[in-house]
Amino acid sequence: MSTFNERFIARREKTKSLLCVGLDPDMEKIPDGYEDASGILEFLTDIVKATSDLAVAYKPNLAFYEALGPVGWDLFGATSDMIRKEAPGALIIADAKRGDLSNTAGFYARAFFDVYDSDAITVNPYMGLDTLEPYLVYGDRGVIVLGLTSNPGAELFQVKSNPPMYELVARSAFELNQHFHNVWLVVGATNDQEKVLKIKEHAPNIPLLVPGVGAQGGDLVFMLQAAGPDQLINSSRGILYATDNKSKVVDAARQAAEQMVVVMRKTLGW
Amino acid sequence: MSTFNERFIARREKTKSLLCVGLDPDMEKIPDGYEDASGILEFLTDIVKATSDLAVAYKPNLAFYEALGPVGWDLFGATSDMIRKEAPGALIIADAKRGDLSNTAGFYARAFFDVYDSDAITVNPYMGLDTLEPYLVYGDRGVIVLGLTSNPGAELFQVKSNPPMYELVARSAFELNQHFHNVWLVVGATNDQEKVLKIKEHAPNIPLLVPGVGAQGGDLVFMLQAAGPDQLINSSRGILYATDNKSKVVDAARQAAEQMVVVMRKTLGW
Repeated sequence: MSTFNERFIARREKTKSLLCVGLDPDMEKIPDGYEDASGILEFLTDIVKATSDLAVAYKPNLAFYEALGPVGWDLFGATSDMIRKEAPGALIIADAKRGDLSNTAGFYARAFFDVYDSDAITVNPYMGLDTLEPYLVYGDRGVIVLGLTSNPGAELFQVKSNPPMYELVARSAFELNQHFHNVWLVVGATNDQEKVLKIKEHAPNIPLLVPGVGAQGGDLVFMLQAAGPDQLINSSRGILYATDNKSKVVDAARQAAEQMVVVMRKTLGW
Repeated sequence: MSTFNERFIARREKTKSLLCVGLDPDMEKIPDGYEDASGILEFLTDIVKATSDLAVAYKPNLAFYEALGPVGWDLFGATSDMIRKEAPGALIIADAKRGDLSNTAGFYARAFFDVYDSDAITVNPYMGLDTLEPYLVYGDRGVIVLGLTSNPGAELFQVKSNPPMYELVARSAFELNQHFHNVWLVVGATNDQEKVLKIKEHAPNIPLLVPGVGAQGGDLVFMLQAAGPDQLINSSRGILYATDNKSKVVDAARQAAEQMVVVMRKTLGW
């Protein structure tokens, strides 16, 4: 099987895009007319159909699935199958932000890579590099490590110590990648630009997963200029909840996605 | 409803114990004779029955459930129901180590507190204090924050910066607890004793959840002397996999649990 990075490059070339569509199925925000668990799948299917030629990746966030109870996990499996059917070649990133002792992390890796067959998983580095290895040894999957996140409270633990934790994490990601070749970093677009450049300095060859553009207000053009084509830029709510009218979901999602992709193509000269 | 700390104290007084039994259902280690998902529940039921008068809390680790696919989440629900039936009053700690943006964290809180009705959840602080708030606002539940973990690789991100991250986390936990009154800290017993005392200094009134005694080799007596009665000391593999003979699981688990509780009672003069 090809590596995650190879599949990313192939998909990027096909779509001329760096768009990752975050799938956060929040019952309270889903447009009227989609009801219950099968309604959620119908909604997500409409979103994927509307964006299938523009999205490099889809990123279901597990919290929204878990909140539905056991049926949520059937829905996560069904969402993954639906993406593979409606957008063949698109990458599936399980946004799970898992982190546990290495013995235990092996079970999370099994869940997302073997059971649900996700292309990549997001992981939390706090417990240390030994806890990331169980994911890294899956050579054909991507391991996307939280670096500098996009929320207001990120600074306290990620930035304020000396050296800043996000720099330590970026350097560690760089070193792990020398060996495993499948490491990515999460870097929120809402952070000041100096920090983003610092990360590119410490981990020059690590692709980025970038939340925070759109609803959270991050700067798309800056991220494109700073990190070039080796990144996925995520939008979740900005695409999913662009309208609250069921009959306009496809158009509104497509329009929101297109707006981002147009900027990507223009900035990168594609 | 009473608070998590009130229920902890009541249960501690009833059992004269600080024991938390970690439930890590690993199919490869479960004794012969327990088969498939219903076999796992039978095994866990036998473990809970064997320890119900000794355990203050049970701590199912979600990784082991997730690795079973969607059926694992039914099993997690069934495990929780079984604990409530076989060991009424025992606390259920969802060892999920979740961490995400606050909007998203609210969905994890819903999953574990509303859907599965866990008494407490373990959470990862890396993303910042705003990301812990959605759990903290459940005043009747416990929020157990990863502080200093028990694995060999913990040092890189938790200890090596200045100030050490684990001290920052302990101080933050202390401050959060002033307001919310339901914060605990995870502190691995495998860490050097100076660090444990440092945590007690920065967060004097925060109860601890202590992994690392038993299979991982941490010092039970030291932890009892350092943190007194306001802690839960966890053993998972040491109790669950004390034998590989199905007919002896109850005896072996009980014996392993009793050995720990005897030391607890003796050291604390109970």
